[in-house]
Amino acid sequence: MSEPYTLILLRHGNSEWNQKNLFTGWVDVRLSEQGVKEATRAGELIAESGLAPDVLYTSVLTRAIQTANIALDVADRAWLPVKRSWRLNERHYGALQGKDKAQTLEEFGEEQFMTWRRSFDVPPPPIEDDAEYSQAHDERYAGIEVPKTECLKDVIERFLPYWESDITPDLAAGKTVLVTAHGNSLRALVKHLDKISDEDIAGLNIPTGIPLVYKLGADFMPVEESRYLDPEAAAAGAAAVASQGKK
Amino acid sequence: MSEPYTLILLRHGNSEWNQKNLFTGWVDVRLSEQGVKEATRAGELIAESGLAPDVLYTSVLTRAIQTANIALDVADRAWLPVKRSWRLNERHYGALQGKDKAQTLEEFGEEQFMTWRRSFDVPPPPIEDDAEYSQAHDERYAGIEVPKTECLKDVIERFLPYWESDITPDLAAGKTVLVTAHGNSLRALVKHLDKISDEDIAGLNIPTGIPLVYKLGADFMPVEESRYLDPEAAAAGAAAVASQGKK
Repeated sequence: MSEPYTLILLRHGNSEWNQKNLFTGWVDVRLSEQGVKEATRAGELIAESGLAPDVLYTSVLTRAIQTANIALDVADRAWLPVKRSWRLNERHYGALQGKDKAQTLEEFGEEQFMTWRRSFDVPPPPIEDDAEYSQAHDERYAGIEVPKTECLKDVIERFLPYWESDITPDLAAGKTVLVTAHGNSLRALVKHLDKISDEDIAGLNIPTGIPLVYKLGADFMPVEESRYLDPEAAAAGAAAVASQGKK
Repeated sequence: MSEPYTLILLRHGNSEWNQKNLFTGWVDVRLSEQGVKEATRAGELIAESGLAPDVLYTSVLTRAIQTANIALDVADRAWLPVKRSWRLNERHYGALQGKDKAQTLEEFGEEQFMTWRRSFDVPPPPIEDDAEYSQAHDERYAGIEVPKTECLKDVIERFLPYWESDITPDLAAGKTVLVTAHGNSLRALVKHLDKISDEDIAGLNIPTGIPLVYKLGADFMPVEESRYLDPEAAAAGAAAVASQGKK
């Protein structure tokens, strides 16, 4: 049960809406065929690494859950205990949910587009409760106040309390923790772990489907640099994420 | 949150070892292609029923977990909270694990064969800890005393405490509970719910992949007869289970 503790982060694979180039946020879309392949590869990488996660954390969004189910099945660890929380969900994209990224870029211009995508504390316009892609009436969020929009700062504020209350105790118990989540919820955690400034986080892109491994000390902060289990694919993947919205 | 409470039982679909006609027990085999189809169909039946489970219970065996993952994915409820326990596992088949059913029938004769398969309180011979198909050293059972063999009575004795401590509180909270498990762990629960005698339980066979719905009162006992979501397929399936081992 001694340090360093092992934390594995995994961003879900390509989804049906990644493929259509739509803003997704809390809309509960499924993995694309490519996403299923990425999840399978992630499972192989985890198995080959010998890291053997002991517990799984996921968001309550299907694409992250599918990714975890496939990856753990491939790694012969389908039997892991599972904890799900909306606090690991993707950033809520507000009124942009369901909108085409390229069209939004064209309509509002690069500056506004990049502000919505990457600003630390400026959220997109809020979504109406009765809008097609609102989650105000989704039963899985019964009892919580469903956001109408979120910036990255909002994601940090709802994710980090859960990190401290639920995930770090499992790490402290010596468990290798796998977190399967989303581009922005993982950016929120990486910002905290790597002490990235509010400005610099804009430039950080996490590739889909490639496990990212942290070794953490007693304070649950890194004792060495994190590493992707497939560094070459990760570099290519991060570049692809950065260029989203471009035609 | 008022009664009757709804409980859905689902036996995992056909596995690779069902297909090979081997005794499985706690050996962690995967679903066959047919089993994947059965799980898909189970998900469709759950979706069509409108029953909408709120929480999932599974064993820690991959074939039950795969069945649940597939069925809930098909029913658009992959996001359900999940609780797994070894107490929902299949009956441990002792030294018979990994043995061919037809060959065992031939070698030991019908009487001994049927005693091992259906006796209420006579377990098969115990498995050695260092045998190929023992689970004595499987990390998922760290901290529990792994059985060396079990009869149905043993399964009841390890399952019912969990039913009372974990599952019935979820029912009492008004949650529709889905339990995805195994032929004998589900027989153990059905014996309790339907007050089936130690003798008569021998004749009860639960078909694979067809959700079985109970409506329970405040004492967590049935207020009406249970029903399969596809009664015709269930009758055919139960007959097929009963004839296992026959050539």
